[in-house]
Amino acid sequence: MRFLIANDDGIYSPGLAILATVAKGFGDVQVVAPDVEQSSASSSISANRPLTFRATKVIDGVEAYRVNGTPADCVALGLFHRDDVDVVLSGVNLGPNLGNGLWHSGTLAAARQAALLGVRGIAFSTPAVHDNPELSDLAPYIAQVMEMLLPRDDLRLVNVNLPARPRGIRWTRQAVEQYDGEVVPAKDPYGRPVFWLAVTQLQEHSPETDLWAFERGYVTITPILLDATDHAALGAVNPSERIMEFDQPDPQLLADSEEAASRAQHEPVTVERASDG
Amino acid sequence: MRFLIANDDGIYSPGLAILATVAKGFGDVQVVAPDVEQSSASSSISANRPLTFRATKVIDGVEAYRVNGTPADCVALGLFHRDDVDVVLSGVNLGPNLGNGLWHSGTLAAARQAALLGVRGIAFSTPAVHDNPELSDLAPYIAQVMEMLLPRDDLRLVNVNLPARPRGIRWTRQAVEQYDGEVVPAKDPYGRPVFWLAVTQLQEHSPETDLWAFERGYVTITPILLDATDHAALGAVNPSERIMEFDQPDPQLLADSEEAASRAQHEPVTVERASDG
Amino acid sequence: MRFLIANDDGIYSPGLAILATVAKGFGDVQVVAPDVEQSSASSSISANRPLTFRATKVIDGVEAYRVNGTPADCVALGLFHRDDVDVVLSGVNLGPNLGNGLWHSGTLAAARQAALLGVRGIAFSTPAVHDNPELSDLAPYIAQVMEMLLPRDDLRLVNVNLPARPRGIRWTRQAVEQYDGEVVPAKDPYGRPVFWLAVTQLQEHSPETDLWAFERGYVTITPILLDATDHAALGAVNPSERIMEFDQPDPQLLADSEEAASRAQHEPVTVERASDG
Amino acid sequence: MRFLIANDDGIYSPGLAILATVAKGFGDVQVVAPDVEQSSASSSISANRPLTFRATKVIDGVEAYRVNGTPADCVALGLFHRDDVDVVLSGVNLGPNLGNGLWHSGTLAAARQAALLGVRGIAFSTPAVHDNPELSDLAPYIAQVMEMLLPRDDLRLVNVNLPARPRGIRWTRQAVEQYDGEVVPAKDPYGRPVFWLAVTQLQEHSPETDLWAFERGYVTITPILLDATDHAALGAVNPSERIMEFDQPDPQLLADSEEAASRAQHEPVTVERASDG
Repeated sequence: MRFLIANDDGIYSPGLAILATVAKGFGDVQVVAPDVEQSSASSSISANRPLTFRATKVIDGVEAYRVNGTPADCVALGLFHRDDVDVVLSGVNLGPNLGNGLWHSGTLAAARQAALLGVRGIAFSTPAVHDNPELSDLAPYIAQVMEMLLPRDDLRLVNVNLPARPRGIRWTRQAVEQYDGEVVPAKDPYGRPVFWLAVTQLQEHSPETDLWAFERGYVTITPILLDATDHAALGAVNPSERIMEFDQPDPQLLADSEEAASRAQHEPVTVERASDG
Repeated sequence: MRFLIANDDGIYSPGLAILATVAKGFGDVQVVAPDVEQSSASSSISANRPLTFRATKVIDGVEAYRVNGTPADCVALGLFHRDDVDVVLSGVNLGPNLGNGLWHSGTLAAARQAALLGVRGIAFSTPAVHDNPELSDLAPYIAQVMEMLLPRDDLRLVNVNLPARPRGIRWTRQAVEQYDGEVVPAKDPYGRPVFWLAVTQLQEHSPETDLWAFERGYVTITPILLDATDHAALGAVNPSERIMEFDQPDPQLLADSEEAASRAQHEPVTVERASDG
Repeated sequence: MRFLIANDDGIYSPGLAILATVAKGFGDVQVVAPDVEQSSASSSISANRPLTFRATKVIDGVEAYRVNGTPADCVALGLFHRDDVDVVLSGVNLGPNLGNGLWHSGTLAAARQAALLGVRGIAFSTPAVHDNPELSDLAPYIAQVMEMLLPRDDLRLVNVNLPARPRGIRWTRQAVEQYDGEVVPAKDPYGRPVFWLAVTQLQEHSPETDLWAFERGYVTITPILLDATDHAALGAVNPSERIMEFDQPDPQLLADSEEAASRAQHEPVTVERASDG
Repeated sequence: MRFLIANDDGIYSPGLAILATVAKGFGDVQVVAPDVEQSSASSSISANRPLTFRATKVIDGVEAYRVNGTPADCVALGLFHRDDVDVVLSGVNLGPNLGNGLWHSGTLAAARQAALLGVRGIAFSTPAVHDNPELSDLAPYIAQVMEMLLPRDDLRLVNVNLPARPRGIRWTRQAVEQYDGEVVPAKDPYGRPVFWLAVTQLQEHSPETDLWAFERGYVTITPILLDATDHAALGAVNPSERIMEFDQPDPQLLADSEEAASRAQHEPVTVERASDG
């Protein structure tokens, strides 16, 4: 099996090294990771500038490249340069990715980018322990999860969190009941207000969610969607309201519109501002 | 009704101005937007530095603030400063947000951040037309969509795209069949390789998707999920495999693990790297 | 006379607007400025990515472009697009640029970039007064300084600071006796140490320096060097030590060295790291 | 002797490792370097956000910290944390820093920041050789330069360039006759114009300049100024014009002005824009 390893903590993270080391036991490994920490990058991509892809020595015996971009950028470039990748592994992130934090996670985003490009993606995260970086203790658990997940090619995108000393493994759903962030006001040295976005400790978790299981010492495995549509809400729309035609669609306007839409889609997300001309 | 208006094109975008202008017809309006273009920012947040929130004059009669951060940052700060917001409107983005492009969209991410924080979010996008910035032509269509959606407080997060001259309105699902991005190799002035991430034109779209309807001249309305779990895949896991207990869970290890997990969650996503000590 | 106006506060700064307005009284004006605030950017340039140069409407009747880069980038692109510029004006910066602060100033750097490219540069700065933005009060003083300096084409680079209500004008030297910055420790929301770089108030200034005159209410005018060499120190080197030849310079090695040096200079400052291959 | 080692290529650069290794032969060594490449950063500092200072293992037996900021930031934080540093060494930069390129150099800026803070600074640069990273060959030359310069505490700031195989050492002045940069137009994937800033090869150099000597295979040593004033130009100002008093200085206005100036200097370079209120 051929693996591409990415992360969001940057190419020199020990979390990436342990993941690459474990993956070598399952097949060929190549690393493509950001040149510097890209935390909370979500699925951001660098649409306004070109990226570099540079060979870097970080792990003995592993071909590795660093990219001056986001986790999703890394996977896009990695899969561009090598078209035979079977699974993209992301992490191991130093810090868990659970609950609504998933929406901001660059670790999951690297795995998601793989899945968007047709390659399976698995994201791994673990709490960062300041005084004892024994990530090697996690190796057997990572290996066990890979043994479970690698044969399951129906699972296109999976998010895994590993507590420090797991008592077991549970398949879970994402906890979405609460948001685990808050704004913390502070002052700059001149006394002017500034605002930090900080992660908060949630007190209670719904049973069987990723947060709930993780706090109870389980490795959590959560299959993740690639379709953002709320199909339940869509299905609940009154059929008579699902399609509304405006009166008198002028055929010329319509033709113009289709052409404009076609052109427009060719445009990148960051187009010249209309008012600038 | 009280609105907060955000975007990803930056506070000086004419798309933001037209959205704020229309929204003023429906209630109170405040603007909180990035100080500079933040395209393809997805749900990235600025977790490693504090943000500023500065009063800025951009639209006559509208209280406005600029933030040196991402679209999601803007909404987090805006809702921190004002707790009576009913709906966050994001956009109008100059460039459509359709199909898999949704995963990278900062416009949708601003609306999503609202929904994560318990406030309804609606994202608006339109093709950017270089030579004719008549965004004011869109005003009646934006107003019509707001008339349809504002009473629907069951819809927590909605993505809207407006073609240049709409022929109607359709409720759609996200097109997820193809990825509309590609890597384009180029050279820097020294002949060294660099790589752009570019949006590609997809040729065919599945019926009733956002891309399909938008190309046919319809305003598209897509309800968006806040739960990233793939419940179908989760439900398909063999019940005997959903929970796996490791042998002989040492009670002490377990207690340690819970404490570590609890501590870990207190940590932000970007913790001190374990190996740094 | 043909002017290019740049700054480091960004294209929407009122300081840029007042400078462009005054300059229109002296000749043709074009604006090229950063799309967002670039404070303390010094003479940094964007060597690793290409820049955009986009027409933007900011001041009635003035052709203006915004650049996604530093002040020095703006001037480089502005002079590339228009080869008939007589003088580059930078500012008016909202915040003075005096003493050792000059080394960090992006406002002076924009003017310096002009001078490096063979075009005269003049930088303007003024204290930012929060509660009374009457920059228009400065217009006659800016005009008076321009009347003094524009005929002096022997002055390639000049730094000007305008107090709020000037009592006169003084030619000054840069105050270099003290550094006006300090490190201010703080904590992030998790209690971890962070460090701000802050400007400090210096208590005493040597007479006739820019800081000394500015505090006494004078507009300060300081001619600035383009040669960073400390000629006094260079001249003091013992002649017998100024050139040292190593023994037995192998002619082949020397030839290799010259060729390598020639190649090397072709390389940009940010070359591929040697160890990466 | 106590050394602080910084650079602009980032803490994982082999150039930093060789410099630290050589310096260990002369005394105590501590490393403080950017977490990622910061090329062409000049003397930019991070004035708008706090910085982190994190212990990092990069060179065996050397205490090292990485900073999420510029080269000048690194030296400011390094000297804040350790007040007994005798000399700050910067580099070895992978790419020469010569001629007008000095104005953009982050390597020199790190050494300059030391000098601004009262500590001697020496910057080292060398051509980057792609296919043979034998920086260790440079070690004896670095050592020889240090032996020459360390006893010279009258030299507060020195810029050193090392060709691949030096034939000797020359004290030189900065070549300022030409600018070695150009704008190179290109296209993004959508055919829109973008512009690279690139280093150009200069054809001729004035004798005894750094560029001239470096091309001839010499290690170049250039003492650098900390006073940016053009004293020759200042001295040439007609004495009658050096001080101009405006008529009728209103005492109250003057008092206000001094107070405002005093307050203003307390402000950072990046003040709240006056027009924002």
